[in-house]
Amino acid sequence: MKIGFIGLGLMGRPMALHLARAGHDLHLWARRPASLEPFREVNARAHISASEVAKHAEIVFTMVADAPDVAQVVLGEGGIVEGAAKGMIVADMSTIAPTAARDIAAKLKERGMSFLDAPVSGGETGAINAALTIMVGGEADVFEKVKPLFEKLGKSVTLIGGSGAGQVAKACNQILTGVGVAAVAEAFNFARKSGVDPARVREALMGGFAYSKILENHGQRMLDRNFKPGFKAWMHQKDLRIVMGEAHSLGLMLPSAAATAQMFNALVGSGMGEEDSISVLKLLEKMSGQE
Amino acid sequence: MKIGFIGLGLMGRPMALHLARAGHDLHLWARRPASLEPFREVNARAHISASEVAKHAEIVFTMVADAPDVAQVVLGEGGIVEGAAKGMIVADMSTIAPTAARDIAAKLKERGMSFLDAPVSGGETGAINAALTIMVGGEADVFEKVKPLFEKLGKSVTLIGGSGAGQVAKACNQILTGVGVAAVAEAFNFARKSGVDPARVREALMGGFAYSKILENHGQRMLDRNFKPGFKAWMHQKDLRIVMGEAHSLGLMLPSAAATAQMFNALVGSGMGEEDSISVLKLLEKMSGQE
Repeated sequence: MKIGFIGLGLMGRPMALHLARAGHDLHLWARRPASLEPFREVNARAHISASEVAKHAEIVFTMVADAPDVAQVVLGEGGIVEGAAKGMIVADMSTIAPTAARDIAAKLKERGMSFLDAPVSGGETGAINAALTIMVGGEADVFEKVKPLFEKLGKSVTLIGGSGAGQVAKACNQILTGVGVAAVAEAFNFARKSGVDPARVREALMGGFAYSKILENHGQRMLDRNFKPGFKAWMHQKDLRIVMGEAHSLGLMLPSAAATAQMFNALVGSGMGEEDSISVLKLLEKMSGQE
Repeated sequence: MKIGFIGLGLMGRPMALHLARAGHDLHLWARRPASLEPFREVNARAHISASEVAKHAEIVFTMVADAPDVAQVVLGEGGIVEGAAKGMIVADMSTIAPTAARDIAAKLKERGMSFLDAPVSGGETGAINAALTIMVGGEADVFEKVKPLFEKLGKSVTLIGGSGAGQVAKACNQILTGVGVAAVAEAFNFARKSGVDPARVREALMGGFAYSKILENHGQRMLDRNFKPGFKAWMHQKDLRIVMGEAHSLGLMLPSAAATAQMFNALVGSGMGEEDSISVLKLLEKMSGQE
């Protein structure tokens, strides 16, 4: 199949390589030529614009930073719609607001094209190991066409609902993981300030209802003082900005997510944005005289 | 062994019965005679006061509602210390503040007696199935003496540290489970208000980093609209009061736990205190016009 892929960063690069290795013809465009280097040894062709990519592909994947980037690369000057034929499918795997995803989907539909919002969780490791969780919003028949390709990238691929539903599921994921990291950090800092070893607490709690993947994995990394990303704090901050923006639009109160979003704001403001989001523990320690 | 047990409520009754069935001589005192009914068929003797229980036992377990109840039954008029010989061990399995536990431990030590704080998690089901998680604070040699008895009540028994450390671990447990329930409720309400099926979201997220026992069990009960306790909202509210009180004393900020504590306050204030703590979902629905 002729596949376009735009957005060859930490996540996009290994994802595009999985598709090439599965025997598909890759068509690429990248702002920085260096991003194309890893594709010299696979069946891939570089183009001068996103619209040129769209001319040569039946489906284009995008994996960029935020909603304005998706809008630019899909709808902007030299963007996908300029080169695309009717029937083209755009599968956006970036994390953007559900409202932005629905808006782009509507604009593509007017032009006889289809859009899937298909954000992922699992981070760089998940992308490298083709073990991502992929949450998809869009029409069922379009989903069925792209599903075999998604399955080259992830181990869990779910059509959540109509347009935007994938982004809603991703927002829920970022609420649960963000609040989860904050709660484990709060509990560990509470234990330590009380003179109790957080490692013993974690061990005792692992077998009960307090068990979570976050307590197991992120909790262990907190104990190891390993703050390397993983998932960068500024990205989690961005995702919680999306969540809180949706809460505002929907007229919805999200108290624990709101408290967590404030911590991630402070984390980035304290210069720890490039560290893993578990650095929220260091923020709490700083605020309680435990540096 | 001669064992006293005081506090024969929903939790204490099955726990005391496990000890009787393990062949120990039970000595009981209860404010309400009806609480003694289930003990007619086991080897148990009722007494007229906690101090009388203490006269006949080598170790007394207490399982009551809150710190003042523990203080009363241990140190008050007609309490355990009035009847106890030196070397007596009191194992308190109630959930109380770590500071209160340390205070009682110190007062018993002055009298040549020992105290373990040994709060549990796992709820009534855990008590009935002898599957509790037991988090213990106190001296190691005292813990070793009582450990075989704890093992009749729970499947995970951990000495966390010195006096109060069991209560600190329990407080951490209540942070993680309380914030966990709030986060899942927020995510589900967010999905529904966005027009997305929370059941599909839960399914997609179960395999990733958002996985928690709370998402699995409590999440499913939210989807089933099964708000029967389980663990009553007013009890979780009480436990978070302890957590926030400790945070105040320690000079510690717990943002996500604080937001959750506020929700539990509102839950009890809305007349849902006797329901399961997952009723926080109903509170969020009410606040977003989704009743």
